[in-house]
Amino acid sequence: MSSTAAWALSHTLLAIELVATVAFALSGVIEGARKRLDAVGICMVAGLAAFGGGTVRDVLLDRRPLFWVEHAGWVWVLMAVCMAAMLFMRTQHLEPTERAMQWPDALGLGLFTASGTQIALDVGMPAVVAVILGMVTAVFGGVLRDVVCNEIPRAFSDHRPYAMCSFAGGWVMVLGHTASWPQWAALLAAAGTATLLRAAALHLDWRLPAWQAGGEPKP
Amino acid sequence: MSSTAAWALSHTLLAIELVATVAFALSGVIEGARKRLDAVGICMVAGLAAFGGGTVRDVLLDRRPLFWVEHAGWVWVLMAVCMAAMLFMRTQHLEPTERAMQWPDALGLGLFTASGTQIALDVGMPAVVAVILGMVTAVFGGVLRDVVCNEIPRAFSDHRPYAMCSFAGGWVMVLGHTASWPQWAALLAAAGTATLLRAAALHLDWRLPAWQAGGEPKP
Amino acid sequence: MSSTAAWALSHTLLAIELVATVAFALSGVIEGARKRLDAVGICMVAGLAAFGGGTVRDVLLDRRPLFWVEHAGWVWVLMAVCMAAMLFMRTQHLEPTERAMQWPDALGLGLFTASGTQIALDVGMPAVVAVILGMVTAVFGGVLRDVVCNEIPRAFSDHRPYAMCSFAGGWVMVLGHTASWPQWAALLAAAGTATLLRAAALHLDWRLPAWQAGGEPKP
Repeated sequence: MSSTAAWALSHTLLAIELVATVAFALSGVIEGARKRLDAVGICMVAGLAAFGGGTVRDVLLDRRPLFWVEHAGWVWVLMAVCMAAMLFMRTQHLEPTERAMQWPDALGLGLFTASGTQIALDVGMPAVVAVILGMVTAVFGGVLRDVVCNEIPRAFSDHRPYAMCSFAGGWVMVLGHTASWPQWAALLAAAGTATLLRAAALHLDWRLPAWQAGGEPKP
Repeated sequence: MSSTAAWALSHTLLAIELVATVAFALSGVIEGARKRLDAVGICMVAGLAAFGGGTVRDVLLDRRPLFWVEHAGWVWVLMAVCMAAMLFMRTQHLEPTERAMQWPDALGLGLFTASGTQIALDVGMPAVVAVILGMVTAVFGGVLRDVVCNEIPRAFSDHRPYAMCSFAGGWVMVLGHTASWPQWAALLAAAGTATLLRAAALHLDWRLPAWQAGGEPKP
Repeated sequence: MSSTAAWALSHTLLAIELVATVAFALSGVIEGARKRLDAVGICMVAGLAAFGGGTVRDVLLDRRPLFWVEHAGWVWVLMAVCMAAMLFMRTQHLEPTERAMQWPDALGLGLFTASGTQIALDVGMPAVVAVILGMVTAVFGGVLRDVVCNEIPRAFSDHRPYAMCSFAGGWVMVLGHTASWPQWAALLAAAGTATLLRAAALHLDWRLPAWQAGGEPKP
């Protein structure tokens, strides 16, 4: 790959990562607003949604500095996004619908999966552990967001493939790593797999197998 | 202890640990199914229940690799258990009752307490901290399971001694460590104490002191 | 500063820290009692409230030993406080009201903010990260307490400045650090700012901007 292409790729990845982080943060803003949190609470939930998955991964891997410490600028970006979103929602009486969020969220899922799995492989984790850490990176931000908002995590309960797409993308990353693909190719393939699977799941309305077990019925 | 006896003991311990991990995973499968999670969510809750306590202990102790990274095979065991449990529950229209789970769970409580306390003592923690970390190992998997499923942790609220049994077992471990018992004896005594106390609590229907304090009444 | 003054200051700080930890622990006892937890559950929730914030900070900073491991005596203090509080509430049919807790809680907020921010600055964190870690120290104990008790964290939802006061106090600490104030002065100024802001917010009934966004209405 020429240096120009590498430059273009790295900047493309950075742009996607920015989009994904913003999308995850916005999902926190929306959930926080629904739960009638105050402005500070909304920022904190947005922060958990955007940075939670990567932070859990870094803690499990004992990797320091945490990515949002290494790039402290991201914290400012997060605060600006929250402020802007709250102002915008107030003045415009308009709220970003969940539907509109699905596509950047799918991009984020793919990219966080790919980068999380790669980071774990780079420090020598076994394949299955790396895949799980990639999934943790992509999914646990949303899990923490939902737990703090006193909801069962949507990723576990909405019967649409989400973590599963991340899981599949992680194995593509492992494949690329084992087959010594160039890093950019493995990243692209893994992120693309997870994102496209998620997009297909949404577009084609795929469902995870319904679960008929007993226990108290819940509507 | 002869080497044959040592071999038998270490394999017995491994077998008990396997039973305990499977029991904890199944408790997650059952709770997840009750909450109508999807198949992926159920596996994640089972993973939190089985590996959560040990992971929190390892993170607090800054001990790496995490035990499920060191023995990555356990992750496959976990997935197989979840698959088998879900298939079985589907085809048999049968579900493992909580009552049936109580005995392997009591075994797990004892073993996780003993091994958790010992690991903490080995890295030089003060006695009271080691006992608390043993309790965290045994109890926090269930706590994470319940928190993610949007329930108050059963270990804190069901008014039957659970964490208390682990606490007592941990002090037996400390006693054995201080008195320089052979490791296998200390492990057995600690695990036995916690397990037998738990079994007695269940069998004799012991209750923790009821709490009469005010606040809004809850049925 | 003379050595007598330093001695007086360090003991004053220790006394305040003790008061703050006890206040945070009592907030856990009260919330646990309200939720009808058993005695062991109440102690655990009290422990999360008192030690949770500092523990999360230490884990994020990869700082060991954890403060409650370094000073294992605090664990005994915690247990004694819980026992005393439960006995007292039982025999006196009296419960510490939330109102009575607000002032030690405000002291704790200030002191934990100042010490958390300072610890983060000492290990070279960027300013904004240090401020956030100070806030985590002061606020996340209560967040963990509320999450485990199946409530949306009060710090995020009660529309009174709480985390915000901590945030402001953290920046005072950064200012003092940058301007090379003596440590005691920076600590006092930061803790004082956060505590006084919180006290003013309570006394003058300040409100964070109400949030009018849509979603399902909640009473």
